[in-house]
Amino acid sequence: MRNKLIVQKYGGSSVANVERIQKVAQRVAGYHKKGVKLVVVVSALGDTTDELVELAGKINSDPSEREMDMLLSTGEQISVALLAMALHKLGCKAISFTGAQVGIITDSSHTRARIIKINADKTEEELKKGNIVIVAGFQGISVNQDITTLGRGGSDLTAVALAKELEADSCEIYTDVEGIYTTDPRIEPKAAKIKEITYDEMLEMASLGAQVMQARSIEVAKKFNVPLHVRSSFSQKTGTMIIKEVKMMEDVVVSGITLNKNQSKITLCGVPDKPGVAVKLFQELAVAGVSVDMIVQNVSHTRLTDISFTVSKNDCAKAVKIAGAAAKKIGSENIQIDEDIARVSIVGVGMKSHHGVASKMFGILADNRINIEMISTSDISISCVIKKKFAETAVKKLHEEFGLSKRG
Amino acid sequence: MRNKLIVQKYGGSSVANVERIQKVAQRVAGYHKKGVKLVVVVSALGDTTDELVELAGKINSDPSEREMDMLLSTGEQISVALLAMALHKLGCKAISFTGAQVGIITDSSHTRARIIKINADKTEEELKKGNIVIVAGFQGISVNQDITTLGRGGSDLTAVALAKELEADSCEIYTDVEGIYTTDPRIEPKAAKIKEITYDEMLEMASLGAQVMQARSIEVAKKFNVPLHVRSSFSQKTGTMIIKEVKMMEDVVVSGITLNKNQSKITLCGVPDKPGVAVKLFQELAVAGVSVDMIVQNVSHTRLTDISFTVSKNDCAKAVKIAGAAAKKIGSENIQIDEDIARVSIVGVGMKSHHGVASKMFGILADNRINIEMISTSDISISCVIKKKFAETAVKKLHEEFGLSKRG
Repeated sequence: MRNKLIVQKYGGSSVANVERIQKVAQRVAGYHKKGVKLVVVVSALGDTTDELVELAGKINSDPSEREMDMLLSTGEQISVALLAMALHKLGCKAISFTGAQVGIITDSSHTRARIIKINADKTEEELKKGNIVIVAGFQGISVNQDITTLGRGGSDLTAVALAKELEADSCEIYTDVEGIYTTDPRIEPKAAKIKEITYDEMLEMASLGAQVMQARSIEVAKKFNVPLHVRSSFSQKTGTMIIKEVKMMEDVVVSGITLNKNQSKITLCGVPDKPGVAVKLFQELAVAGVSVDMIVQNVSHTRLTDISFTVSKNDCAKAVKIAGAAAKKIGSENIQIDEDIARVSIVGVGMKSHHGVASKMFGILADNRINIEMISTSDISISCVIKKKFAETAVKKLHEEFGLSKRG
Repeated sequence: MRNKLIVQKYGGSSVANVERIQKVAQRVAGYHKKGVKLVVVVSALGDTTDELVELAGKINSDPSEREMDMLLSTGEQISVALLAMALHKLGCKAISFTGAQVGIITDSSHTRARIIKINADKTEEELKKGNIVIVAGFQGISVNQDITTLGRGGSDLTAVALAKELEADSCEIYTDVEGIYTTDPRIEPKAAKIKEITYDEMLEMASLGAQVMQARSIEVAKKFNVPLHVRSSFSQKTGTMIIKEVKMMEDVVVSGITLNKNQSKITLCGVPDKPGVAVKLFQELAVAGVSVDMIVQNVSHTRLTDISFTVSKNDCAKAVKIAGAAAKKIGSENIQIDEDIARVSIVGVGMKSHHGVASKMFGILADNRINIEMISTSDISISCVIKKKFAETAVKKLHEEFGLSKRG
């Protein structure tokens, strides 16, 4: 029987200083001494990446993306060398590698590169020698031999991709929280840690506002069926397993509740209700790189209609400019902007087989006198836009009524 | 006619902060706009390397040399990315590379690797595209694909090796002083900047204490006849040319005076004057990695003799231990240690064809009542060990009497 192989990923807060690096080394050494084969993916120390970005900004406000990758990739390289030294100190055999050295081949889209393939020979060779293989997360090398980075959440992606390539028994994502919660514990102290959640639910939660893992890494894990274990580097407790299918005694309809207060709502009022009018507007927004989240077009009884959509606050100014120009062209009456909104969402694969989940959600909000301004649904989620001031109340009431405090 | 190609090297103090990086970029851009092809080798920002060494020391007091190289090489990688960004800001085409990317292949002696060869294809390709090629100094990659560093003064070596490989028209070493001086200007304010000096003289001066360039890079420059121009990154003045042969109107006998106060003298007293006694001692010192500088064995009229030698202060404790053990074995009477010495040296290729230089030096010291404790000579240098308290006086008097203040 071959030894168990685990890929572990430690985020920046887990290696923020010398003491924490030593703690991580102790944890890794513990596994190693039990005979587990280990590949450890590490992010840059604490705020290193932010500091490097700031330094670059002082020199060039619009730095070349290739050079940014050259600069930022040093952060993870420092981490891996230090972690290797810490493991040597504990008497473990360990060797560190950059993304390039460990064969993470990407395309040439600097600052947001996509992994094309992984040449895992080097890693396998070092594992055979009994080494703990420490890999700089977040980075790779293009076919032109340029250093690339994978964008936000890139270290998670490195870990997931390596776990897939090496057919690891599990992929542990260490972070500063103990797992995935039914909702943000800062809003609802009764929020419970979820034992198991499906890729789809986690994807939905990530895209709706849960910030523990980026959607991209979960997508890759889902695609290749890599089981993820999200857990804390500060405790020994089991965290949350993200897997393909969750087997439970009783059906859980709603798995989690997410909140996003970082959106603005833009409304074009009095738009002529003709086919193709909305298409043009959203095409222009897409070309400008504005990602539109929810869209609602009122069914009209006159020849005029209202079109509302939400965008991330970052994109609001750009979106308003484009919508303004569009409004003039199509003869819209005026534009309204509402920065005072929140999107609250319920997520759960159980919705597929349960009816009445949406109406239950709407009922809960209505009972608490919370008006719904926009609605959007997917197979496994329902989102409502409400006034921002009701956001926390909505989360708490939904958490309670859908019985989430009990799960764990 | 092909465009001129210059390799420039900027040390850590030249790129210590954002403003200095911008200054370097301006200088480089000035050359580029004149049509000069440029390869720019950069060291780590200011004290970065020291800070990384300190960080490593907190984690492991005896860190793996491979991991140290992994760690330290990030310093230069940061510099090259930032300099590229600064050059882009000035409208110049520029691209940065690590030592690995630019094909600097070394052996596997981590922290002190030797360059085996340089694959300059990438550099030549980028120069053809009109790019300024910015190269991380001090580093390379071994045939095993491990990151290596070249040891102290490694960035100079990178520059010299690239200049050789690319057949550059010149290799400019930018530093925080204006060139090579006839002696240390902090000791003798009348010290003059030397216009031209031979590789051999510069080698001798470097090994005797002049700290502007490491002997190793000068050796390589000499071997491949790469003309070096040592100059300041803070001024536009011409510095010192280090070349094969200096043609001058009148012969210069002494080119420079160096001082080394970082040595200790160890004496074994009353050693039986038999062949082979000294050999054993110095073999043991060599095995222990102690580098012995000067050795004097007194001619004895009895059957007992004294053996004195000097070592770097760092190695003194180790040397005393070894000498102590040896003294017992060979029946020496006792050991004396003198920490209070200085070595003052005169250097010049002119000595080869001039007689009486040594006796002139001894005469100058005697006239100033400075006793000579040890003497050592080479083809182009004469060194005397004297009491440390006379060091500055000796330098000043020799500087004056050999007419160095006039040269420049």
